[in-house]
Amino acid sequence: MSASDPRVGDLTEGAILRGILDRLAPTRAVVGPGDDAAVIAVADGRVVATVDTLVHGPDFRLAWSDAFDLGWKAAAVNLADVAAMGARPTALLVALAMPDDTRRSFVEGLADGLRAACDSLAPECAVEGGDLTVSDTLTIAVTALGSLDGRAPVLRSGARAGDVVAVAGTLGRAARGLAILFERFTDAAGAPLAVDGSALTGEERSDLAVQLRPRPPVALGPVAADAGATAMMDVSDGLVLDAARLAAASGVSVSFDSAALGPDPTSALSGGEDHALLATFPSGSVLPDGFRIVGVVTERGVDAVTVDGRPHDGRAGWDPYRDWDAGRG
Amino acid sequence: MSASDPRVGDLTEGAILRGILDRLAPTRAVVGPGDDAAVIAVADGRVVATVDTLVHGPDFRLAWSDAFDLGWKAAAVNLADVAAMGARPTALLVALAMPDDTRRSFVEGLADGLRAACDSLAPECAVEGGDLTVSDTLTIAVTALGSLDGRAPVLRSGARAGDVVAVAGTLGRAARGLAILFERFTDAAGAPLAVDGSALTGEERSDLAVQLRPRPPVALGPVAADAGATAMMDVSDGLVLDAARLAAASGVSVSFDSAALGPDPTSALSGGEDHALLATFPSGSVLPDGFRIVGVVTERGVDAVTVDGRPHDGRAGWDPYRDWDAGRG
Repeated sequence: MSASDPRVGDLTEGAILRGILDRLAPTRAVVGPGDDAAVIAVADGRVVATVDTLVHGPDFRLAWSDAFDLGWKAAAVNLADVAAMGARPTALLVALAMPDDTRRSFVEGLADGLRAACDSLAPECAVEGGDLTVSDTLTIAVTALGSLDGRAPVLRSGARAGDVVAVAGTLGRAARGLAILFERFTDAAGAPLAVDGSALTGEERSDLAVQLRPRPPVALGPVAADAGATAMMDVSDGLVLDAARLAAASGVSVSFDSAALGPDPTSALSGGEDHALLATFPSGSVLPDGFRIVGVVTERGVDAVTVDGRPHDGRAGWDPYRDWDAGRG
Repeated sequence: MSASDPRVGDLTEGAILRGILDRLAPTRAVVGPGDDAAVIAVADGRVVATVDTLVHGPDFRLAWSDAFDLGWKAAAVNLADVAAMGARPTALLVALAMPDDTRRSFVEGLADGLRAACDSLAPECAVEGGDLTVSDTLTIAVTALGSLDGRAPVLRSGARAGDVVAVAGTLGRAARGLAILFERFTDAAGAPLAVDGSALTGEERSDLAVQLRPRPPVALGPVAADAGATAMMDVSDGLVLDAARLAAASGVSVSFDSAALGPDPTSALSGGEDHALLATFPSGSVLPDGFRIVGVVTERGVDAVTVDGRPHDGRAGWDPYRDWDAGRG
């Protein structure tokens, strides 16, 4: 195996890089990978820019995610952030820090996943630059750039009392997928075990797929902006927690109707990582296909978020510092 | 100490973030930190974008670098990459992955270092976004954006036979600083020890400062472009190694004159991390102040790089995979 699938520690940076670049989509940039920096065309006069990091342990486990999954997810979570501004993703930069015993095939799988996520979720976006470095902890930091194509950015701060609250994409399924991993694919000591899909129902497999290869509704970001969305964000940490952030930024409260949250409102309210789009629209708006109404915006009350008129009394979502437990991940 | 300087694991992400944002320069962006993504003004129609990562172990040791040093260096190395395209840095995004026992004061020191490096090296650039996550390995991935202000980007591929080869900034001093750390500030087992500056000569302290807080000539990037530089890159891994990359991209060879490389040509040829600018200019050009001629470009020969007419027979520079030794760093 070692001869045909060498450790990256036995390769030069140039050789690793060629293996990656060969698998990526052709550059669409003015200057693509290979120089000190990329140069991306920006017709709009503004560029949208965001970065999000996946770290082995807190964000993924190699026993559960393969290289393709990781590349896919690292791209998808950043594409969702660009979409949440009302923008169209145009380029990714990928900073990859990996142990020197990482195999070349792993790096190639990661590149395949990055490309597939772009091709599927944001076909005009490609990896246009990046950085390779050695680390004890496998870490993937992806920067995404995007174009507003003349639109005003849709901020978290624009929601107004009377607006409807709508969501596009799944809610709570990624969290259910994560629960399946922790409950069904760990050993007695809590260490992750390889996933045996044959042990799962179709719905469980589907929840797991949302956790491992999320499909945020990236194309709906600009569509929502064009439809008059007053505020928008992606639901990365949990609907109640993220809605509370939107409410705080807008100086309003958000009231959810649990009956609109599907068959498992508890997961929908607290589960993170689906990267659905949460948006507010003026009352009476014709919502774009793909969005469904889940609540209303009210004047700022005692609680930033209520569910069925009451304060939310369950878990609100995931805080990466407060909630992180090194033993559990 | 714990009460006044809490672990980040005892804070919420929002509280950590506020501690950082309070210390950064005011936003210059259309949308600054706090939303799903930043929105940066781009008058030029193109944006320069690059990412570079510092990882605890391979790239720095906490016994040697304090938080301010790290923030400074993480900014500086990326500002240099933007400059090497002939561009002016306009914004940074900072992805910070840190252990949950990191102290708040450390995060604040890092923010201070990021800001100070921008203020000093690229005063129109500020941190406009980022990401916080938990990791066993302290990791700082910085994305830098920049504007060409109407210039053509200066690529690695534009050098032509007959051009002069010039450098702005120090060469080899960062490597000498690193050697001081490994030779003078490690214990018998090779573990890093706190630096005692009083044990060093003035020149040693100066070399150490170049290693810990490099000052690449960022403002000279656009100046070199305006002066007609045909190719440019930053010297991050070593002059011979980086010049060989420029030579390969341009289809030429580079011939250095060791007498032009200062009192320690060996360090100048092989030492990385100074982040000097290496540029080629048409013969007879008036070089901008700050650049000095160190060689000439020739037709492509057997060797991509020669020194005093002979193949370079020493170390060419640092390859992050091939040269990394987990025991030594």
